Amino acid sequence: MLQGVPFVSVSRGDRIESVHAVAACAVTVDGEVLLALGDIDEPVYLRSAAKPFIAAAVVRSGAVERFGLDDRDLAIMSASHNGEPDHVAAVRALLEKIGAQPGDLQCGAHAPSYEPAALALAEPPTVLHNNCSGKHAGILALCRMLDAPFAGYVDAGHPAQRAILALCERVSDDRFGAGRLGIDGCGIPVYATSLRHAARSFARLATLRDLDPDDAAALARVRAAMIAEPFYVAGTGRFDTDLLRIGNGRIACKAGAEGVHASALLDLEAGLVLKVVDGARRAAPPAAVALLARLGALDDMQVSALGSHASFAVKNVAGLRVGTIEALPGN
Amino acid sequence: MLQGVPFVSVSRGDRIESVHAVAACAVTVDGEVLLALGDIDEPVYLRSAAKPFIAAAVVRSGAVERFGLDDRDLAIMSASHNGEPDHVAAVRALLEKIGAQPGDLQCGAHAPSYEPAALALAEPPTVLHNNCSGKHAGILALCRMLDAPFAGYVDAGHPAQRAILALCERVSDDRFGAGRLGIDGCGIPVYATSLRHAARSFARLATLRDLDPDDAAALARVRAAMIAEPFYVAGTGRFDTDLLRIGNGRIACKAGAEGVHASALLDLEAGLVLKVVDGARRAAPPAAVALLARLGALDDMQVSALGSHASFAVKNVAGLRVGTIEALPGN
Repeated sequence: MLQGVPFVSVSRGDRIESVHAVAACAVTVDGEVLLALGDIDEPVYLRSAAKPFIAAAVVRSGAVERFGLDDRDLAIMSASHNGEPDHVAAVRALLEKIGAQPGDLQCGAHAPSYEPAALALAEPPTVLHNNCSGKHAGILALCRMLDAPFAGYVDAGHPAQRAILALCERVSDDRFGAGRLGIDGCGIPVYATSLRHAARSFARLATLRDLDPDDAAALARVRAAMIAEPFYVAGTGRFDTDLLRIGNGRIACKAGAEGVHASALLDLEAGLVLKVVDGARRAAPPAAVALLARLGALDDMQVSALGSHASFAVKNVAGLRVGTIEALPGN
Repeated sequence: MLQGVPFVSVSRGDRIESVHAVAACAVTVDGEVLLALGDIDEPVYLRSAAKPFIAAAVVRSGAVERFGLDDRDLAIMSASHNGEPDHVAAVRALLEKIGAQPGDLQCGAHAPSYEPAALALAEPPTVLHNNCSGKHAGILALCRMLDAPFAGYVDAGHPAQRAILALCERVSDDRFGAGRLGIDGCGIPVYATSLRHAARSFARLATLRDLDPDDAAALARVRAAMIAEPFYVAGTGRFDTDLLRIGNGRIACKAGAEGVHASALLDLEAGLVLKVVDGARRAAPPAAVALLARLGALDDMQVSALGSHASFAVKNVAGLRVGTIEALPGN
């Protein structure tokens, strides 16, 4: 069971009302631990933070060349997107390049994560609005490259998932056997690896070192796409989109459900992965900004530009500010 | 800063994905501590768990007699309701008895908490759908009794709030001065008291002892109403409604936001109050059932009847069960 340290407070009036514990690890590609918070050797599900590696498995298959994929296609493949109209259009365009239909996606439908987009929908949401629809479209491209059926593409034994998990094992220096796999919200396998191993996989994404050449080329292509098209990785108002932009090409980052956040830090030649122990989404951005600042991966101006993610209001129904969510002093 | 102990797990596949820490206290009306988990002396905002005491302040004012209030009126005053049509009708009926209008309520509008009710709305939600609308209507009744204006009734200095907070201080044996008050989601003051003091206030609700006669009579009336009309305290599928029913008249309970849950235990002559340290709503029912069972306030059949609240599925978008939320073994 993962141990963390109290790290993010939720205040109301003059008092702390709730506290989130965080575990985190930053390592270089050589395995030097730059930062350790709580337990860094207990396996943790990376959830959607693994999407850059899933996209890399698609790229490695040759899909970019065969289907003429561009940065936007690769960014939406790596995304937990807001379901805004431009996201939906990007997934639709990707499916057309692959010769697939929305009906081939097995992610299920949910309302757009971006509330104005959800409120603006005249029809019920579709699979295209699912925040993982780009990833699923990418996996269909991988199916095509492997001459594998679309049927069952979400199953761990399907050739597409085997190829994805093999790449994830290589970049993580880990094995995802019994007890290490679960099923994600969108139906595909998710793997658990320690924060130390996960951070190393993001150090590889940052440095492109200690990888076989095809993996390195694939990671480079995905990283470049995420940095070039931040909107398509998340969307309006989202932390990942803003961190990618403010990182100015030197940070590639991805959030995962249940309070995971991962960053490839190009200047530090390192990776940082954190997990909010209780799984709260609200605590991940304040924790990430505080740890990135502590590592020196963000300077004061960048931290200030990310202020709305590092410290934000608890509002009541009437819209009045009644409290604050932010990292505890000293973090 | 509140300290708790790891208590509720969120699993996925064969692994624990996230963990919620809980602090809790059960005491008798004489102050004997029956159960202590984590820090029981750090003040905690009770949030909506204080609603039975707010309703009691309304009852103590004489509003029941003047306006002819019945159990349903008092239950909806004590409620965090689902916004189902019957809840909205109950608040409307209460407002009519008082001679007030929906427009007098300052709680703000939000969508019904019960999703089918939210989806069935043809018009935007109103203040009546706010889960606190019954409480606000009750405060309007108190304004009438005090000859105080409706204007500003949510402010801590308003005579209605002063009367409410005075009763809450009496039942808690505590003072809510500087640093002890915040503003709730619905705009009214919320007080912070330790779990020990909060549990004692629920022990008084359970026993009606160690109270002045008017407070005792008011608490008795509110408790009877909550037990008689469990649907109006919460609603379809809600833990409080089911616990009130299954408690068979021997438990009066109320949840509060940010992971608070409180119970008056009539057979044990005690109160139990818990807080999920990180504020997660999902962890409160499993923790409450586990602690009520440990105390002997629920027998095996009652625990079994509450099974869907004590242990429930994490489902993915497609509706497949991918994990479980429940108390950790041994709790």
